[in-house]
Amino acid sequence: MTSPAHAASQASVSESNRSRILEHLYHNGVCSRAQIAKALGLTPAAITKITARLIDAGVIEETGDIEGRLNRRSIGLRLDGGRFHVIGVKFARSLVQIGVFDLDGRLLSIEELPTVSDDTIPQTIAAIHLTIDDLLDGDPAIVAIGMAVPGPYLRDIGYAAIVSSMQGWRNVNFPKEFAHAFRVPVFVEQDARAGALAQRLFSTDGTCDTLAYYLLGEGIGLGVIDHGALINGHLGTATEIGHVSVDINGRPCDCGNVGCLERYCSAVAIHQAIDQAGLLGPGSPAMTHREACNALFRLVEDGDARATAILDEAARYIGFGCVSICNLFNPQRIVIGDIVAGAGQRLLDRVVEITREHVNPDILRETTITLSTLPSDAAVSGAAAVAITQFLDHPSMFFDVSQP
Amino acid sequence: MTSPAHAASQASVSESNRSRILEHLYHNGVCSRAQIAKALGLTPAAITKITARLIDAGVIEETGDIEGRLNRRSIGLRLDGGRFHVIGVKFARSLVQIGVFDLDGRLLSIEELPTVSDDTIPQTIAAIHLTIDDLLDGDPAIVAIGMAVPGPYLRDIGYAAIVSSMQGWRNVNFPKEFAHAFRVPVFVEQDARAGALAQRLFSTDGTCDTLAYYLLGEGIGLGVIDHGALINGHLGTATEIGHVSVDINGRPCDCGNVGCLERYCSAVAIHQAIDQAGLLGPGSPAMTHREACNALFRLVEDGDARATAILDEAARYIGFGCVSICNLFNPQRIVIGDIVAGAGQRLLDRVVEITREHVNPDILRETTITLSTLPSDAAVSGAAAVAITQFLDHPSMFFDVSQP
Repeated sequence: MTSPAHAASQASVSESNRSRILEHLYHNGVCSRAQIAKALGLTPAAITKITARLIDAGVIEETGDIEGRLNRRSIGLRLDGGRFHVIGVKFARSLVQIGVFDLDGRLLSIEELPTVSDDTIPQTIAAIHLTIDDLLDGDPAIVAIGMAVPGPYLRDIGYAAIVSSMQGWRNVNFPKEFAHAFRVPVFVEQDARAGALAQRLFSTDGTCDTLAYYLLGEGIGLGVIDHGALINGHLGTATEIGHVSVDINGRPCDCGNVGCLERYCSAVAIHQAIDQAGLLGPGSPAMTHREACNALFRLVEDGDARATAILDEAARYIGFGCVSICNLFNPQRIVIGDIVAGAGQRLLDRVVEITREHVNPDILRETTITLSTLPSDAAVSGAAAVAITQFLDHPSMFFDVSQP
Repeated sequence: MTSPAHAASQASVSESNRSRILEHLYHNGVCSRAQIAKALGLTPAAITKITARLIDAGVIEETGDIEGRLNRRSIGLRLDGGRFHVIGVKFARSLVQIGVFDLDGRLLSIEELPTVSDDTIPQTIAAIHLTIDDLLDGDPAIVAIGMAVPGPYLRDIGYAAIVSSMQGWRNVNFPKEFAHAFRVPVFVEQDARAGALAQRLFSTDGTCDTLAYYLLGEGIGLGVIDHGALINGHLGTATEIGHVSVDINGRPCDCGNVGCLERYCSAVAIHQAIDQAGLLGPGSPAMTHREACNALFRLVEDGDARATAILDEAARYIGFGCVSICNLFNPQRIVIGDIVAGAGQRLLDRVVEITREHVNPDILRETTITLSTLPSDAAVSGAAAVAITQFLDHPSMFFDVSQP
């Protein structure tokens, strides 16, 4: 359905065409003007006009001759992904990571702030300001900052609605705090949605325009791109799979619901199960959720039966979450990532098995389920993807590309 | 996010602008060219050109002078909703209804075919062909046919993946059977999604571009419009809330999953509960699901305690489905419709109560939950909305509007 919301007015048609050309170059490397015109259904005249502006503004550049149709040589155009950098900031409950990436998603540097507790949030915010200021001072190639925060994130209001066990974050209004603090624009997005953008931009499995990123971290999150567009909902809080009840008589959740998926299989829930079983000894409660989960995964690899039982029970819930994702969003690709995805192939096999047992085969046949192939220490790449997506979608925000 | 999928090529920009003008006239009644230009951000020259074609093709018409800005008179334009008709065909498990509507959703005639059973499906298909042929012969104003079928509907393949208890429908390939059978085009959509389109087009509660239609019929379905676009998924089977598990240790479902929502609160599930309780006597199993539910609702109105208990238990599940809809799709408006919505205010109150208890207040504050105000005998209006949406979105499929 074409709709007013997606249909384009004159001004936005120009920006949309600029964006389409940038995206095409981003995903396809060096292309001639004729190749772009053909791929996008635009006239050669339009391409010539728009690319001239993009070259003048320094966004893209001409390369040497490339081989064209009928062996005719033509000039190539290129968006040099290494030339522009972005900062990505990932907020989890107790973890803040700040990375610098180039447009191709290559990690240039990463820094982890000290573990956050409810009463050190103000210091953490101050440290983020200082760190970003330093990065911006040292790297003039940085053009934008992306931030990924735990969902549900109320975009219009600017804060996360629920941050289980870390209510202090609810007092932070992210846009207010950061939007005008730096020389480059700041974009804030819910973390799983940021992860979906990262999968779309950086995945080496080929582009896919209907995909879900299933974030198994301190919370359970989901970001869904449906035919190229993020599913947002009215306030930007859609696709909160972690707060779907898998048992309406089940465990209460901080969100107000009962039996929420994330109460059974998030890193926090798994850490609780580890503590209750006494699996890692008395030091267990003091570990971070990531440390406790990683220790569990090592025990599973060593064949520990109690550890395996804890992982398999979590995997069962994660699998049923995946069944719901298939029935609710029918993505072509489901990518599983973040802390719990560190359990690797054993987790994936169990999730695929449960999904195969419970999803209609006609639907499942066209769905692939994989572990994220993005570097596991680069969960922050989702935050970078938020900034890069804005750069590609709205070039006029970053460059003066409209002047003749 | 602007994306290749939504960005427009030259040709589709023209069609998109045509469509936007038609939609604007559809929702706003008589407008001047200047008003349209202002509302849509198009140049007066573009408006003049496009509307001239639409007038020549007979889609819209000029009215007399209307009052313009600064008391200047200007000519009004109008899309006469009464001038074009569509046929809507609603398939349920055991029920087929065929209605004729005008573009404004006014019901002109409706016909219900004899109750379908698994072995009378071929006769039903034949009767649909005959009925539609007769309607088309008698009404030259009919421009399109919309069909609404139970989900999950595999759009690319053309059949419904699961029709619990009526597997015979699985052998019907809807586009193959109907697409080229008539003088006007045929469009097939999943029933709840069709209902969402109907709410968007015909609702008297004002337009809303992020809404969910929660279909409580023989199955439980959902159609979601997110910022103006239907959520489809890769194969067109997204938003199947009826097959989300509310209890991973629960009742098995024909879809392969367990504990599916529709196993607890569809008209079929409620009919089963009525039979099991012996509430309506020995004739109960022979009733249609709609008859059994309507009889239950009458008993509830009369204060029958056993009937009330059955309804309240179903309402509890429907309420938890509504909680999931809020968390998964964050719609601005949730409209409840179809057979079980016949329970009326008591059901709505219970659903609102459960939603209030279990959804984050920041999200719920911006969500309204209502019963469908479309005529209850016009469930088939969703099918008509499928056809009308195509008419408004793709005028060049219906008229030669591209010639100079």
